[in-house]
Amino acid sequence: MDEEREDGFEPILMVPVGYLVRDAQGLDVAPGESPSIEALRAQPVKIVIQNRYADALLGLEEGADILVLCHLHRASRDVLQVHPRGDRSRPLRGVFATRSPVRPNPISVTTARILSIRGTILDAVGLDVLDGTPILDIKHHSSYFDTPYES
Amino acid sequence: MDEEREDGFEPILMVPVGYLVRDAQGLDVAPGESPSIEALRAQPVKIVIQNRYADALLGLEEGADILVLCHLHRASRDVLQVHPRGDRSRPLRGVFATRSPVRPNPISVTTARILSIRGTILDAVGLDVLDGTPILDIKHHSSYFDTPYES
Repeated sequence: MDEEREDGFEPILMVPVGYLVRDAQGLDVAPGESPSIEALRAQPVKIVIQNRYADALLGLEEGADILVLCHLHRASRDVLQVHPRGDRSRPLRGVFATRSPVRPNPISVTTARILSIRGTILDAVGLDVLDGTPILDIKHHSSYFDTPYES
Repeated sequence: MDEEREDGFEPILMVPVGYLVRDAQGLDVAPGESPSIEALRAQPVKIVIQNRYADALLGLEEGADILVLCHLHRASRDVLQVHPRGDRSRPLRGVFATRSPVRPNPISVTTARILSIRGTILDAVGLDVLDGTPILDIKHHSSYFDTPYES
């Protein structure tokens, strides 16, 4: 493979397979403050999968640990360096060295736990994304793929 | 949020930020066989990031554990159920309950380790994708986000 391929890539089309529903009123947040990541993750949410993808849910079970990939549709795609967690006392880092939502392809990856399943609606806990966020993918959590690689 | 939003989502455009380079000749594979996931992960590969995203690499270091998100550009997007690892003796599962490359948005998530960095080229180990696979994102591995969620 040679370097010329670097500029030869086409954009890729992704489709939302569902969206996240969160009761923002139910979060314990001081007026004018944003909820913390910890508070967001602790609140149970609903993952609503589109009916056309219902067959892809076969085998998911209550209590299972999953990875959820979301499209962070409000995040900037042009910013390449950030102060981690917005803390200006911390030095700038490249977004590829962080978990900032800001990045060229704003896809989040977060581990969540399924609390219950009713049809194409999954109740889950562990997600820090906001109400209405498009869901791109669900995968079963795997210690083989998801913990640091040891050769 | 109401149900009508289910059909109101627009497709999302993602851009490759780089690609993977693997020496397929260097894999130990019997003639006519595909390399195992384990053999692919054990082989060091190069992650070649496009120059325009160089600033996003600041802070990535040798020895760091990262998540690498790839676009599995040869994977089917229409198949919703598979026999895990192609083993027909195992019952069908929905792709959302597996790590199959086959899924509506074929994005892989794999933990890798950086061996060395020279400019915009990362030598890494732990990835199971093929030569030429487009890279969508790199994130630092986080035990907070990447291990099963405990409330």
